[in-house]
Amino acid sequence: MRLAELSERSGVSTATIKYYLREGLLQPGRRVSATQAEYGDEHVRRLRLVRALIQLGKVPVATAREVIAAAEDDSLDHHWRLGAATWALAHGQKNPPDEEDDQATEAAFRTVNALLQHLGWRYDQELGELSPAYRKLVTAVAALRRLGYPCGVAQLLPYGQLAARLAVSDLDLIEEEPTPAAQVEAAVALTVLYEPVLLSLRRLAHAEESARRFTGGEQA
Amino acid sequence: MRLAELSERSGVSTATIKYYLREGLLQPGRRVSATQAEYGDEHVRRLRLVRALIQLGKVPVATAREVIAAAEDDSLDHHWRLGAATWALAHGQKNPPDEEDDQATEAAFRTVNALLQHLGWRYDQELGELSPAYRKLVTAVAALRRLGYPCGVAQLLPYGQLAARLAVSDLDLIEEEPTPAAQVEAAVALTVLYEPVLLSLRRLAHAEESARRFTGGEQA
Repeated sequence: MRLAELSERSGVSTATIKYYLREGLLQPGRRVSATQAEYGDEHVRRLRLVRALIQLGKVPVATAREVIAAAEDDSLDHHWRLGAATWALAHGQKNPPDEEDDQATEAAFRTVNALLQHLGWRYDQELGELSPAYRKLVTAVAALRRLGYPCGVAQLLPYGQLAARLAVSDLDLIEEEPTPAAQVEAAVALTVLYEPVLLSLRRLAHAEESARRFTGGEQA
Repeated sequence: MRLAELSERSGVSTATIKYYLREGLLQPGRRVSATQAEYGDEHVRRLRLVRALIQLGKVPVATAREVIAAAEDDSLDHHWRLGAATWALAHGQKNPPDEEDDQATEAAFRTVNALLQHLGWRYDQELGELSPAYRKLVTAVAALRRLGYPCGVAQLLPYGQLAARLAVSDLDLIEEEPTPAAQVEAAVALTVLYEPVLLSLRRLAHAEESARRFTGGEQA
C-alpha cells in the first residue's frame, strides 16, 4: 500500500508518519520509485505500537525507540523481550524524585521485600532493585509512611493480591495475539492503556463504596 | 507551638509553610505578638493534606484550595464531602485531551454504561457523565478500541470487580481516621498516594506472571 492508504488504515496522519520515519520509529517502506514507497501490514502494526507509546503513553521518542528495539530483538527469549519492553517503558514515565535515604525509605524497603516474599513472587534482589516499578513502589510506600498513613504488609497485601489476579487476565489477553512480536506490542500497549482504566475504575468504586456506607441509600 | 516546631513536626520547611499561609492553603495561627503566631495540631494535620496534594499529587495550588474547601464544608454530608474532595482532586490531574465524538467514543460510552450496570454500581446518569473519572474511563476505552485491542465488558469486568474490592479496604482504612475532616483528608491522600502503589504492583505482577508462564523456572 502507499502512504495515503497506510495513513487511512492506521489512523495516523501522513505528516506524523513521515516524522516517525525520520526518527527511525517506523521501518522504511520498499522503494518503488524515486518518490514512492510501498508499505505492508507490518507497518500498520508498528504504527499501532508507536501511536500507543507516544500519543497515549506520552513516552519520549528516544524511549519509544528503545522499547521497539527490545520488542524486535530475536536474541532475547520471550519473557525477556516482554520484560525489556515494559522496562524501557517505565523509564519513559516520570518517576518521583529520588527520596533521601532516610528512615522511612529504609522501612519501606523492608516492607516491600516482606510483601513480595509474602506474595511468593520470584524476585531477583540485585536486578529487582534496579527495576523502576520496584523503586516507584518503595518511594510511594515511604511517602505514605512519612505522612503518617498506615502502610505495612497488611495494607499492601490486598493490592498485591489483586494485581496478581489482574496480571493473569492481562497475560491471557496478551497471549491471544498471534506472534511473539505482536505479544510484545500488546504488552506495552495494554500496560499503558489499562492504567487509566484501572485508576478511573478505582475512583468510581470509591464513590460507589462511599455512597453505600454513608448514605445507606439504594440505587435510584 | 511556634513556626519552627510546626516545621519540625510536619516535615515542611518554614519557607514553604509561609508560602502556604500566603496562598490561603494553611489557616493562620493565633497571633501572640506582632511577629509571632501560635499553631496547633490542626495546622499539623492540614499541612499533611496540603503536602500530599501539592508535593505528591502534583495538584495545582488553586485546585488544592478547592479540595480543602470541600473537605471543610460542614453543610455537605459526609458522602458529599468525600466526593467533592476527590472530585476536585481529579480535576487537578492532567486529563487526556477530549477525543473527537466518533464511533469509538460512542461505543465506549455504551461499554462503560453496560459495565457499571453489570457491576451494580449506583450511578446518576447526568452527574456521572460530568465526573472526571467517568470521562477518563470512556477516553481510555475508546483509545483501546481505536487501536484495535479488545476492550468490552468481558475485558473490563475483572478490573471493575477488583476495583470494588480495593474500595472496601480503602474505605476501611479511611474509616479508621477519628473525625470526618480527617477522613476526608485521608480519602484525598490515599487516593493520590495509593495510585503509584497500585500501578507499580501491577507491573511487578506482570513480570512475575510472565516469568511463570514463559520460563517455567522456579524461584531462585
